Amino acid sequence: MTDALQPERLARAALSRLGEPGDLRMTGLVHDLGAMRVHEHLSGERDLRGVLTDIAARLASLDPVRDLESADRLGIRFVIPGDPEWPAQVDDLTHALPVQERGGMPLGLWVRGPLRIDQHRDAVAIVGSRSATTYGEGVASRLAADLAQHGVTIVSGAAFGIDKAAHRGALGGGGATVAVLACGVDRVYPLAHKALLDHLADHGAVVSELPPGSAPTRARFLARNRLIAALTRGTIVVEAAVRSGALNTANWADRLSRPLMAVPGPVTSAQSAGVHQLVRAGSAQLVTSGADAREILGVAGTHLLVEPRAVQRPRDKLRPRDARVLEAVPVSRPAEVESIARTAGLGLIEVQSALVRLAREEFVVRVPSGWQLGEAARV
Amino acid sequence: MTDALQPERLARAALSRLGEPGDLRMTGLVHDLGAMRVHEHLSGERDLRGVLTDIAARLASLDPVRDLESADRLGIRFVIPGDPEWPAQVDDLTHALPVQERGGMPLGLWVRGPLRIDQHRDAVAIVGSRSATTYGEGVASRLAADLAQHGVTIVSGAAFGIDKAAHRGALGGGGATVAVLACGVDRVYPLAHKALLDHLADHGAVVSELPPGSAPTRARFLARNRLIAALTRGTIVVEAAVRSGALNTANWADRLSRPLMAVPGPVTSAQSAGVHQLVRAGSAQLVTSGADAREILGVAGTHLLVEPRAVQRPRDKLRPRDARVLEAVPVSRPAEVESIARTAGLGLIEVQSALVRLAREEFVVRVPSGWQLGEAARV
Repeated sequence: MTDALQPERLARAALSRLGEPGDLRMTGLVHDLGAMRVHEHLSGERDLRGVLTDIAARLASLDPVRDLESADRLGIRFVIPGDPEWPAQVDDLTHALPVQERGGMPLGLWVRGPLRIDQHRDAVAIVGSRSATTYGEGVASRLAADLAQHGVTIVSGAAFGIDKAAHRGALGGGGATVAVLACGVDRVYPLAHKALLDHLADHGAVVSELPPGSAPTRARFLARNRLIAALTRGTIVVEAAVRSGALNTANWADRLSRPLMAVPGPVTSAQSAGVHQLVRAGSAQLVTSGADAREILGVAGTHLLVEPRAVQRPRDKLRPRDARVLEAVPVSRPAEVESIARTAGLGLIEVQSALVRLAREEFVVRVPSGWQLGEAARV
Repeated sequence: MTDALQPERLARAALSRLGEPGDLRMTGLVHDLGAMRVHEHLSGERDLRGVLTDIAARLASLDPVRDLESADRLGIRFVIPGDPEWPAQVDDLTHALPVQERGGMPLGLWVRGPLRIDQHRDAVAIVGSRSATTYGEGVASRLAADLAQHGVTIVSGAAFGIDKAAHRGALGGGGATVAVLACGVDRVYPLAHKALLDHLADHGAVVSELPPGSAPTRARFLARNRLIAALTRGTIVVEAAVRSGALNTANWADRLSRPLMAVPGPVTSAQSAGVHQLVRAGSAQLVTSGADAREILGVAGTHLLVEPRAVQRPRDKLRPRDARVLEAVPVSRPAEVESIARTAGLGLIEVQSALVRLAREEFVVRVPSGWQLGEAARV
């Protein structure tokens, strides 16, 4: 590791072991003074605004050089601002309002996997409930597959439920997919997802602002959520109960002024209640398909929406006069031609010949007591 | 039948046998000249704007006195504007833009059943697919029951699926319920709903603008839908495929500036696709329960009343999507639609249609260089 940013990288690697991710004191200081000056101050055990002395002592025991070397041996790189691989969209976190007293830029991103994380400005986050339903998992997977097929990188966590379904869908769609963790990228959480995480490390990317070895905590999940929103161009919530963590990611997308999208579900499902709440509150736009999401995100020129249309029915092809006569045929029982003519407000002869034409295509059928609707009219 | 309105009633009864419901020529003439003058002109076989001679001849064969008498014997009354039982909210149809060349006030309403139809200003329409799913029927029924328990009258058609589920729910909730038909109120369509219609005729009301004996036609269903929207304070669509007739009713609610609400469902269900489209287009607000609907409708006794609120400004009544677009229009200078869309984080087409709606109420004004805030936005 002999690059121009080496001193900066060492400072950031060290600091990333000190504070909690998204701790506003740390991210604020680094923003104001720069990582190296903060590191220098703390190493000198000088007090900084009276808040950091408690952690300064720990700095002595750290060895960022060894840290970066052992990460390297594990195939993990530490990407920091200024690096060519730094994803510029993450910088937006500098100006986003904190959520639950967390916020600000990550000190750096620890990355495992072949995917360069700076090349996914079109990435989309798909997040949702861990205890998703079969419906939710199916929808998340199909959404991710559709987006992946259109060149959109999928970003999510690595949890059960929607996260996993999203990655699976993206992989199935032959696309790129990124997992952002609330623990070190060398750790496996949940354990059941070892194969998934290994696969992503081999073919996609596993990302965290926590240094290798760090354990997941609730607070770290909340801080992690801002990265999922920041790395992507928009966030889709697939299933979320009323107090789901996915709503925290949604909140971050909102703070970052990125489109927030929500997939509806049955109103009888608790796993959709939080999603519906987002739509009702006007925070999220309802999406029902990858096409909907691509339109909102303006992916690849698809944003001029073609409204979903029902299949053309045979009756759509009728000439207007015939359509008018057809509309005048009672739906319940046969009618005489005079009565159909009266209803249609057309002449008798005209109606008679329209009926004959309509009968030819089975829109109407002649029966002893007049005319009734035929097979084709019921489609 | 010896009331002050008798000549008017006879004229309207006769005219109601002449034209098709919602025929703009007829509703326009009656609006401009009054029913009696139109009837008189036609009886004198004088031409009226060259359009009605074809039906004038038929007038001679009609006997409105006998018509009203025989309706009376069947327990059917003909309620016309000016009657104490006339539901004043229907008058809004006078100014609503036509939908598919149909519109205007009904000539009168043929009513069967003990419920007075003028006493349901709080009524809500619940409409949706005939081929509803078990999910949709369950939701419609529970919604209707909840609203009925809160004193809200339910209005719907008499079709299979959502219509029937809504009536059943309302009856189960001990509430009032009204069926509006696309045929004479003495007829039973569909035949399988004889028991339901009989029950409504005994305990609620069955209403139609078509005189007794009239058969249902497709065109009449479309005209009927405007009455369902006009009789109610808001419309809830429970399930609707992309081209469902329920969307026609939804369209009418919109034209009448009445809240349109939509119940989401699985995105995998074709029966929810039309509903989701309404929400995506910003035409309908998403509701998941009776409480949601009551809040939107401001039905007495809901939690809305508990929360102290700031003085209502015109903009507070905007639908959430429109409010969001309005907030994205710069206060200082005009902006192009693309820039507004970007700021609002919404799709271009969506923003465009919101701007057109907002312009109608002078929240925004179109100027050469884009859109700027209008008078109403400054209040």
